[in-house]
Amino acid sequence: MKNRLPVFAPLETDRTPTEDPDFSIEELQLASRNRGMPLEALRYDVTPTGLHYLLTHFDIPAVRAKRFRLELRGLVGRELTLGLADLMARPSVTRRVTMECAGNGRAGMRPRPRSQPWLLEAIGTAEWTGTPLRALLEEAGVGAGALEAVFTGLDAGMEADEVQRYQRSLAVADALDEGVLLAWAMNGEPLPPQHGGPLRLVVPGWYGMASVKWLARIELAPRPFEGHYMVGTYRYAVGEGELGEPVTRQRVRALVAPPGMPDFYTRMRLVPAGPVLLEGRAWAGAREVVRVEVSTDGGATWAEARLEPAAAACCWQAWRFDWQARPGRATLMVRATDDGGERQPLEPVWNRHGMGNNAVQRVDVIVA
Amino acid sequence: MKNRLPVFAPLETDRTPTEDPDFSIEELQLASRNRGMPLEALRYDVTPTGLHYLLTHFDIPAVRAKRFRLELRGLVGRELTLGLADLMARPSVTRRVTMECAGNGRAGMRPRPRSQPWLLEAIGTAEWTGTPLRALLEEAGVGAGALEAVFTGLDAGMEADEVQRYQRSLAVADALDEGVLLAWAMNGEPLPPQHGGPLRLVVPGWYGMASVKWLARIELAPRPFEGHYMVGTYRYAVGEGELGEPVTRQRVRALVAPPGMPDFYTRMRLVPAGPVLLEGRAWAGAREVVRVEVSTDGGATWAEARLEPAAAACCWQAWRFDWQARPGRATLMVRATDDGGERQPLEPVWNRHGMGNNAVQRVDVIVA
Repeated sequence: MKNRLPVFAPLETDRTPTEDPDFSIEELQLASRNRGMPLEALRYDVTPTGLHYLLTHFDIPAVRAKRFRLELRGLVGRELTLGLADLMARPSVTRRVTMECAGNGRAGMRPRPRSQPWLLEAIGTAEWTGTPLRALLEEAGVGAGALEAVFTGLDAGMEADEVQRYQRSLAVADALDEGVLLAWAMNGEPLPPQHGGPLRLVVPGWYGMASVKWLARIELAPRPFEGHYMVGTYRYAVGEGELGEPVTRQRVRALVAPPGMPDFYTRMRLVPAGPVLLEGRAWAGAREVVRVEVSTDGGATWAEARLEPAAAACCWQAWRFDWQARPGRATLMVRATDDGGERQPLEPVWNRHGMGNNAVQRVDVIVA
Repeated sequence: MKNRLPVFAPLETDRTPTEDPDFSIEELQLASRNRGMPLEALRYDVTPTGLHYLLTHFDIPAVRAKRFRLELRGLVGRELTLGLADLMARPSVTRRVTMECAGNGRAGMRPRPRSQPWLLEAIGTAEWTGTPLRALLEEAGVGAGALEAVFTGLDAGMEADEVQRYQRSLAVADALDEGVLLAWAMNGEPLPPQHGGPLRLVVPGWYGMASVKWLARIELAPRPFEGHYMVGTYRYAVGEGELGEPVTRQRVRALVAPPGMPDFYTRMRLVPAGPVLLEGRAWAGAREVVRVEVSTDGGATWAEARLEPAAAACCWQAWRFDWQARPGRATLMVRATDDGGERQPLEPVWNRHGMGNNAVQRVDVIVA
């Protein structure tokens, strides 16, 4: 598909991380297009449609559902070309999945990688309906030499000074995970255009970059795919020129719905003194969260929150904590630990692309 | 309702307009919560749910539809208290309405007013279903001394150093306009929480601040309402301490869907040379757009676009323009004129709160 893309001279944009605490017009443009989930929406088990986070690298493509075709190519026993009706005639399942952008928390890193400047809101949980990818791959027959499945979306644009489509790969074993869906519905409605309609991949437990939107092609390949979104970003690289480990599953994280009410401009939280129920969610990709701790004194002391089990695998878990708010200022913090023993760090762990920053959230409040 | 709100000491936030071309963390926080419509979505007659712009002053309130009550009070013959089922049992209409935030374009003003830093995306068109306010007011009986209807939402927070609910008023004559709806559905679905569910006001042709979300109370009052959102902002004030004219209906504006494809970070547009169909929308509040002109040379020359009639009153109009793109750089501009003779200015007309900036859009493109 790539040979049909036009060629433009490199823009040679400077994307060196910046020490500037303020944000450039490029960052604001991205923040105005992409969408975080306002944290008060942590109250919903399933994020209402339109409040789920949204990251679109290029433009939302115009795709006609009736003309849409998914191509399955490469090292398969039988190549397949399927329309939406063909896919919807297959067995369907609905999974509740928490999705998070790998760049969530990027704006909290110093120096700040120049990209979509996420604070903490690049999250959401939806009920995705589709057909398991595994059965489709088994039906086509995975060739003996197949190492990876390469997924190509219909969105195109320039990045890294090259015009490209959005493409990501999964190891065949990961693509065969029973949780992976080819999804055509979100929260019981046809997949909206901005979430990848008519068809997207949903890879539970992984950061969002794996869940390719506007999915048009799957190719089984004999070697690792080295497209920009595999090697040029979505890597935990620190030094310049360092490749870094690939970004894969979501790291453990808890968030609190900021209590009380906000000041419009500063978003400072104002809380009446007395008992306050702090509530939020925690998740850890494919792992289970086993502990959520809350500090109401800026990290000096921590106490355990009441944690609910997950409604499904790869879905966030609700937690609650009773706080006696006394007049004055306070800094609320929350941190989660998963069943692999990973606990959120107190400070961001820096990397060049601003990936996987799961440092604990801090919420400053005024109690009166 | 106001006497139940808590009292906090003033935050004394500096909101003096700034000459800084970069954006503060406060502005980024607002841009991350609020949501513009990505301009490629100008392709849709009706903005898909989840792509419509969204401005929420405080938090999205948690409202249970079953417990929800709308109170009609003040200078009426008969006070009314209505549940959602009572309202939905009344005659319902569906209207296609283009909504725009009064602050759209604020980030383009110099110095820049400090608030939600909209670029151009604070727009959207939805099909709103509800019952006409007029019939409800007539049934209750508008008292002889009633001058204004005051609308109170359930959203609360601090602004202008005071805890307040969001409140706006309309002159009784405007509230009796047959287009004004009490809406419980958007695009055929129950009103999402972020758009004011379970019930909001929709005032066609006006900037969005008039369409009070989470509407809980209507009070007919004998004098002009002087709440913060009537006199402290949503005014075309220039000098400090100047009240300024009230912001009311949408000013004439056209936007183009940026052609070609974007560079991810800079959003620079890349267009293959040859014939390019430029497409967009234009609107003018309650007025009709009678002309849309396009410049492809940065404003040196203008040519008329093909303009379609509106599908309904207070709804945007599609326009199209054939462009022969030649290799090199170009600046596209588009401007609309309404049936009252108002035409968009080439440069922003400054005011203190960053209201109603309908200066023409400019899109830089690289053609190769």
